[in-house]
Amino acid sequence: MFYDLIIIGGGPAGITTGIYAARKKLNTLLITKEFGGQVSKGHEITNYPGITMTMGVELMEKFVEHLKKFDIEIKEGKNVRELNKTNKGFEVILEDREKLESKTIIIASGKNPRPLKVPGEERLVGKGVTYCSICDAPLFKEKDVAVIGGGNSGLDTALDLTKYANKIYVIEFMDKLLGDESTQEKLKASGKVELITNAATKEIKGDKLLESLVYEDKKSGEMKELKVQGVFVEIGYVPSSGFIKDLVEFNKVGEIIINPKDNSTKTPGVFAAGDVTDIFYKQIVIAAAEGAKAALSTYEYLTKIK
Amino acid sequence: MFYDLIIIGGGPAGITTGIYAARKKLNTLLITKEFGGQVSKGHEITNYPGITMTMGVELMEKFVEHLKKFDIEIKEGKNVRELNKTNKGFEVILEDREKLESKTIIIASGKNPRPLKVPGEERLVGKGVTYCSICDAPLFKEKDVAVIGGGNSGLDTALDLTKYANKIYVIEFMDKLLGDESTQEKLKASGKVELITNAATKEIKGDKLLESLVYEDKKSGEMKELKVQGVFVEIGYVPSSGFIKDLVEFNKVGEIIINPKDNSTKTPGVFAAGDVTDIFYKQIVIAAAEGAKAALSTYEYLTKIK
Repeated sequence: MFYDLIIIGGGPAGITTGIYAARKKLNTLLITKEFGGQVSKGHEITNYPGITMTMGVELMEKFVEHLKKFDIEIKEGKNVRELNKTNKGFEVILEDREKLESKTIIIASGKNPRPLKVPGEERLVGKGVTYCSICDAPLFKEKDVAVIGGGNSGLDTALDLTKYANKIYVIEFMDKLLGDESTQEKLKASGKVELITNAATKEIKGDKLLESLVYEDKKSGEMKELKVQGVFVEIGYVPSSGFIKDLVEFNKVGEIIINPKDNSTKTPGVFAAGDVTDIFYKQIVIAAAEGAKAALSTYEYLTKIK
Repeated sequence: MFYDLIIIGGGPAGITTGIYAARKKLNTLLITKEFGGQVSKGHEITNYPGITMTMGVELMEKFVEHLKKFDIEIKEGKNVRELNKTNKGFEVILEDREKLESKTIIIASGKNPRPLKVPGEERLVGKGVTYCSICDAPLFKEKDVAVIGGGNSGLDTALDLTKYANKIYVIEFMDKLLGDESTQEKLKASGKVELITNAATKEIKGDKLLESLVYEDKKSGEMKELKVQGVFVEIGYVPSSGFIKDLVEFNKVGEIIINPKDNSTKTPGVFAAGDVTDIFYKQIVIAAAEGAKAALSTYEYLTKIK
């Protein structure tokens, strides 16, 4: 099968791209590891216009249900390994080496939480290390935990944890917290939270389960160890763009640079949409709109090259 | 009252601007003649992600309900007469001469399809007469339809309809079509399209639903009637921007030129969002996202000037 379009990604941008492409009767394949993207890991959603209140998982179920009303081929549970230009268009190679071909590509692969990259982290994911407070906060009832990152998402995570955990350390690399004052006050008021600044996380220890976190006190140079059963990593995101190589240009933080009017990239036929791109605001409705724009631009591009 | 922000417009862009501005605790006034914009005039909506199927009116009711959950002042039933820059910010003068002041302005006043202005047209809107092929083409499966206007948007509409409709008449007032040759060729190749030039549409007929279209053959002066169930009017749009004057720049078709990344205009403090701007695609989800972007940009602007 030589598709008109392959969409890479199944978050709000990828799903909306699929809806719009299918409405335009493009012969489309959507590839995603899992549907929902970051939204499925989110709290209550109260800023998607027209849906006053919903949970991230529910909203994404509605998006997927909407997508599946249309005639579109889907490969779920698949990771993209490589994207290459060919004489006829593009080829997408999956991790299981399956090769798929198309005239155009829309990259809507979103972003993933930035890892700490310290010893023990990867090994202890799911055994105490987590990147999703909504998913996992309730698992740490009466436990001692550390939140890495003192920005808004770190503070929100800590606040979430005050409902469950016994003791919460917030570990910030810089000399002060960057998150909202009002949240900091609530954390103090809880009596459960200890804020530790100037702290560089060095190692996460544990045998079968997480047992402690080691950090360097940057002022004294001293190594300190906290006995915790959970570590919530909240130090930002990395765009999921490793498979793309030189078909597009990236900005300093690894986001794909797009023409904001039509979502085109430097390679004709390659478009991008949503949080993987350099748009200023990462919001569900904006990612969805970017997907719609990318699909409509792709349709116009295909009309021209025919 | 000296507002942080006055939003002009109550369609998807204006409402979403309001939701986002209120979430950012901006002291906001939203002014609109009526809520819903063009969407309330649409048929079924099947392309707003997450809501598989709804009617335009219903969707806009949900948007308004969502808006009203937040703390925001609204003036409904009001037309804006003038927008001026002042020493302190901006003043908005309503048609009833009431004067309102703010630090920033978001123009989200939308646009209106240019109507044919023939008998039957207004009465049969939503009953076969439509101004939006992307919205409504799929509703005319196996039907006979006419597209009024042989420019690119008319031809694109006709091309879109070839996937659904049984027979498509393209009615052009001039002696030749102005739209792309390549599209004309595709229309011919489809075997479904009849191009009628030198044709002045005179009337749209139908009792409860649209039944036929009457046009004058300008060469012979003869009146002709086409049995159709749908009429797509594609003779351009008029942006609702008459009140703005020289605070912003306009493109050739009267749309406000914005910076597509942050929705700013040439006047600091004046932002614009949605169909009144020069964005390429006029879609509900895109207009909503543009409103969110404009509100977040306005928030950043206000933070800087404080």
